[in-house]
Amino acid sequence: MTMHKEVGAAYGIKTVAIVKSLLENNDQIAAANGRRLAAAGVLAVNVIAGPGAGKTSLIIKTLEVLRAHARVGVIEGDIAGSIDTERVLAAGAADAVQINTGGSCHLEAAMVGRALERLELGQLDIVFVENVGNLVCPTHWALGEQMKLCLLSAAEGHDKPIKYPEIFAVSDVIVLNKVDLIELVDFEREQFYESVRALNPHAPIFELSCRSGQGVVDFGCWILDCLSKVRDE
Amino acid sequence: MTMHKEVGAAYGIKTVAIVKSLLENNDQIAAANGRRLAAAGVLAVNVIAGPGAGKTSLIIKTLEVLRAHARVGVIEGDIAGSIDTERVLAAGAADAVQINTGGSCHLEAAMVGRALERLELGQLDIVFVENVGNLVCPTHWALGEQMKLCLLSAAEGHDKPIKYPEIFAVSDVIVLNKVDLIELVDFEREQFYESVRALNPHAPIFELSCRSGQGVVDFGCWILDCLSKVRDE
Repeated sequence: MTMHKEVGAAYGIKTVAIVKSLLENNDQIAAANGRRLAAAGVLAVNVIAGPGAGKTSLIIKTLEVLRAHARVGVIEGDIAGSIDTERVLAAGAADAVQINTGGSCHLEAAMVGRALERLELGQLDIVFVENVGNLVCPTHWALGEQMKLCLLSAAEGHDKPIKYPEIFAVSDVIVLNKVDLIELVDFEREQFYESVRALNPHAPIFELSCRSGQGVVDFGCWILDCLSKVRDE
Repeated sequence: MTMHKEVGAAYGIKTVAIVKSLLENNDQIAAANGRRLAAAGVLAVNVIAGPGAGKTSLIIKTLEVLRAHARVGVIEGDIAGSIDTERVLAAGAADAVQINTGGSCHLEAAMVGRALERLELGQLDIVFVENVGNLVCPTHWALGEQMKLCLLSAAEGHDKPIKYPEIFAVSDVIVLNKVDLIELVDFEREQFYESVRALNPHAPIFELSCRSGQGVVDFGCWILDCLSKVRDE
């Protein structure tokens, strides 16, 4: 057996400088989005997950809990299509805007800025921003949100925090979805919590199943608490 | 209910030009990798999937089928860690190299070029290149492979080809993993096949479960057929 060998990445200085300048420009627009949301007293949540973790389902199920208590808008980021926008409106979102990134692997603040112009923020309490399905790229692109939510499906495996550490480290809340499958997929809860806690000691972690409904009310109530805090500031 | 509204992405001309030049540079290095693989008569497979679809498990299960018939090397692409390299070596890979991308969301041809230098290609028949878990970014970055494999887990849902069309369109083979969960996750087979076929009429589609082993031998035999074709060329 050969010993394992490692090859690091080497990027040119020019490439790094270009990316840095793009990110700085993005941060400025994100700050402006943040000021607009704060002025309207709206809580914005950036929902980040890989493909098929259940981002839209989480938004829909949470909407069902929240809609008697808060007016919820949704910004749907997808590479293509507008299925999700139709689904969230049918589930009772007060307003929704579709962003098609045209191939891009993450949302950027400028896209969200244009979407915010299309929403009547004065009529909303909470805005969920569903990012493109990707556990890597959205990490670095601030959108102006008050809260980053990292969503993982139990079917993806307990080792994901080790493989995609950055998103788990920077998130304000972590949601483990599809816990109805947890016994079927060799998901080791203890290892999952241990590796999340090593990266992020304080973010609340919710376990739920959008399919069975288990845990969704607890999560919805916590979001309402967060809204009160935003309004009290 | 508000009608759904759509916001397109707008990138600056300068940004597009920079990305195009990076991709062209990558294509040249990929072509050199491809020539090196062809000279050694090695079949290289670029394994692309979102987080937790089962890329490493597919490689390990296929290794178990192939190892009596072919010498298999693995290049493991991860943002961090070397767990997967240790796993594939323990499962019988003849050689393995870890690439840590240091945050990058996809492998690039230059990284794979450096990894190929560390493998003894003359001693190998097949090289699996496990890309970073991402259904978007790896699509555009050629590595020098003869074959792009797109892997989806049934738990991710039948609608993924509609949401991530490019990778399904450009792949040479599509593998649906975790079919042991298919009845538990509302996966609509007919809609899945319909949307894949609309994007990619001819790529073979394999259904399998790395957990139960179902379908893995068929897939391994097909890979051996592909190797014979590479050798006959």
